Amino acid sequence: MSVLSLLQESLGALVDVSEASLEQARADRSGHSAAGRPIAVVHAERIEHVQETMRIATATRTPVVVRGAGTGLAGAANAGTGEIALSLRRMTAIHEVRQDDLLAVVEPGILNADLNAELAQHGLWWAPDPASRDISTVGGNIATGAGGLLCAKYGVVRDAVLGVDLVLADGRLLHLGHRSVKGVTGLDLTALVVGSEGTLGVVVGATLKLRRLVPGATCTITATFPGVRGAAAAAAAVTAAGVQPAIMELMDAASLAAVHALLALPSPTPGAAQLTIQTDGPAAGIEAETIAAILRAHDGITTVTHDREEGERLLAIRRSMHAAMASLGTTLIEDVSVPRSAMPAMFDEIARIESEYGLAIPTVAHAGDGNLHPNFVFEGSETPAHVWAAADELFRAAIRLGGTLTGEHGIGVLKRRWLADELGEDQWHLQRQIARVFDPLGILNPGKVFSPDA
Amino acid sequence: MSVLSLLQESLGALVDVSEASLEQARADRSGHSAAGRPIAVVHAERIEHVQETMRIATATRTPVVVRGAGTGLAGAANAGTGEIALSLRRMTAIHEVRQDDLLAVVEPGILNADLNAELAQHGLWWAPDPASRDISTVGGNIATGAGGLLCAKYGVVRDAVLGVDLVLADGRLLHLGHRSVKGVTGLDLTALVVGSEGTLGVVVGATLKLRRLVPGATCTITATFPGVRGAAAAAAAVTAAGVQPAIMELMDAASLAAVHALLALPSPTPGAAQLTIQTDGPAAGIEAETIAAILRAHDGITTVTHDREEGERLLAIRRSMHAAMASLGTTLIEDVSVPRSAMPAMFDEIARIESEYGLAIPTVAHAGDGNLHPNFVFEGSETPAHVWAAADELFRAAIRLGGTLTGEHGIGVLKRRWLADELGEDQWHLQRQIARVFDPLGILNPGKVFSPDA
Repeated sequence: MSVLSLLQESLGALVDVSEASLEQARADRSGHSAAGRPIAVVHAERIEHVQETMRIATATRTPVVVRGAGTGLAGAANAGTGEIALSLRRMTAIHEVRQDDLLAVVEPGILNADLNAELAQHGLWWAPDPASRDISTVGGNIATGAGGLLCAKYGVVRDAVLGVDLVLADGRLLHLGHRSVKGVTGLDLTALVVGSEGTLGVVVGATLKLRRLVPGATCTITATFPGVRGAAAAAAAVTAAGVQPAIMELMDAASLAAVHALLALPSPTPGAAQLTIQTDGPAAGIEAETIAAILRAHDGITTVTHDREEGERLLAIRRSMHAAMASLGTTLIEDVSVPRSAMPAMFDEIARIESEYGLAIPTVAHAGDGNLHPNFVFEGSETPAHVWAAADELFRAAIRLGGTLTGEHGIGVLKRRWLADELGEDQWHLQRQIARVFDPLGILNPGKVFSPDA
Repeated sequence: MSVLSLLQESLGALVDVSEASLEQARADRSGHSAAGRPIAVVHAERIEHVQETMRIATATRTPVVVRGAGTGLAGAANAGTGEIALSLRRMTAIHEVRQDDLLAVVEPGILNADLNAELAQHGLWWAPDPASRDISTVGGNIATGAGGLLCAKYGVVRDAVLGVDLVLADGRLLHLGHRSVKGVTGLDLTALVVGSEGTLGVVVGATLKLRRLVPGATCTITATFPGVRGAAAAAAAVTAAGVQPAIMELMDAASLAAVHALLALPSPTPGAAQLTIQTDGPAAGIEAETIAAILRAHDGITTVTHDREEGERLLAIRRSMHAAMASLGTTLIEDVSVPRSAMPAMFDEIARIESEYGLAIPTVAHAGDGNLHPNFVFEGSETPAHVWAAADELFRAAIRLGGTLTGEHGIGVLKRRWLADELGEDQWHLQRQIARVFDPLGILNPGKVFSPDA
């Protein structure tokens, strides 16, 4: 019997072979699509559906690509010819919210924003805050080890997951992690699963570490600088001064211009770069004044507002970056991360690469944590060779500066050819062997993260 | 040539076979010793010494037990017959301290307190704060995934390590992790190594995530309750109310009595239990008042001091617990961790076990994070069977309440027989296979964590 027939026999109407669904499963938001269409999209509604799918996949040695909302930026969830696309988007239950233990137990398909809307009713939040939070799932956030705007102060996804329930390639269900604040029983497989991009198993449930909503005011500071290097140096100076903003976002001139155009705002000063900074918590006002003084000392034209709505309006400019880039063409969004002190040097490297390759590379940065998103915009669906060559220079510069290929988007298919450059051959092989312990047949997201020909 | 001859030929005077050293290497502070003495203690002073030791160990298939300061509480660093004890205690260099990037690069043998004394000169600190901080090494803290008093507010070791340099069983050196705040390149092997108790490799260097020293006042609150359940319920109420103390320690009546006797303080009220709580940061004063009101509402006799020295004096009582227990006999210090709301129920279980087994089990708890240290005190060096039977009940109760066998001490030899009970057989075998990827010959700390006969 064919794989499709086996799936249909077991899972009936959960098996979707409509042209629209198969086509949609080929791509995420990376600008990259899988070759061909998958065999089917399975819309799992319960853990048993995931287990059954994996048992069939193992029996028939069929590759499985797990998908959430398909908002990834590295191609890790793209499913193509000969593969089963396993969607968890319908598994949206919140099983438990505990104010006393500051945890929630949820299914993976719930959107980050939907979860946080519910948690807010309890005075709680889950800190991971990717720019995609309105459209990306908790399971996707876990699979990629997502970051966002708040990481320097409030941590990354790995810091916010206590445990995961994982279905292995052969359909067995494991419960990893614990519900307590502390726990060192055996190896920390929960942390290993965070960011593993569907190569170790299927995350079918998660115990999330929550925070209480931060009381008090929010202050928002904007500062404009003559150039991007000045803005980067000012941001590094804020960190070095020992103030901890909740958010510190940098936009270069090209990014600002594109977003202002998209939102029909007045054009910004040509060449100018901007920092948008938010402070929160009991010392928000004092911290905002300290930060404003540092920015002014770095020649930033600086304003401070204590109005929360005005703050959100200012941040909306940053949050519109992805849409602004998409309006210009196909975008390859890069994601290098460097030590904070190296940010000005990284912007120098970007300027050098722009000049050498004759490209504009609009760049935004989570400047509080040194995570830069240089954007390559081009025509058509294939990334041109000279763009890849420029990206290659970018990656090597980041690694040279003590940084990493990807701060929060993951490796997927787009960066797998550079993985061994950063890890070294020995570590690459070790990681690959570890993945094989979870997935001996190599049916979980094959060709993602670990390039088959590396 | 014998293993000892090979070591001596390569490493000369670093190879120590003095009776005192061999005897010392048999034990940590768990009350447990290895059977027999190791072949030698190798005092590595550089990474190359570690690599050379591992190459000889691999060539001769000789087990290696890595040691720091030998302050572990689970027997993971105990070296016995036929094993090489590899001490990293001489590798104490601080290679780098970065105020701007909030990181330090250190060797593993430096004491936690020595590192923090140096960091304080830069206005920085490394948050992990095990009770052993004056006598335990950073490498040991990483190997056990140590916790301490500050974890609910400032995190555990896993949250405070950006990268580690790891020598594999065959002597190869890997650089895991990164220097940036964010980084999701490949699998997170740094997190996997934290808490792996010497089973995956030898941590020869670490890039630590630092914090700035917390400015402002420190307030200390003490409250006395008629019994331990009332104290536990009050502590859970503090967490549930949304205030976040830096420290919240609970001592039961037997613990208080023992420490007061050791320190020659006036005897405490019989049966009374105590909470010692510290708040810090800009809102320390307000938080202390909020907490004091909650404690009083729970019938705690409560005092608040804003005097930092007085606060340290009060906390010194808690920090003397280990010495007080040691003065009574041989101690088996347990380390269960439960969700915070389950703390009163866990104390009920302890009372039940005390009564069923006719034992006194003096217990202290990091009440802010639900981590309890019940102490079994007995005569002689062997843990009696009825104590193990009582400990077995304790572990099962913790797991039943959603908790874990060990919050911060690790599995070592003392708890390996319960590991599969918590992990489940499938996960136990998976973890064991992962360890074998790092160490195919099984020479790294064999018999620790993963019991050979499980």
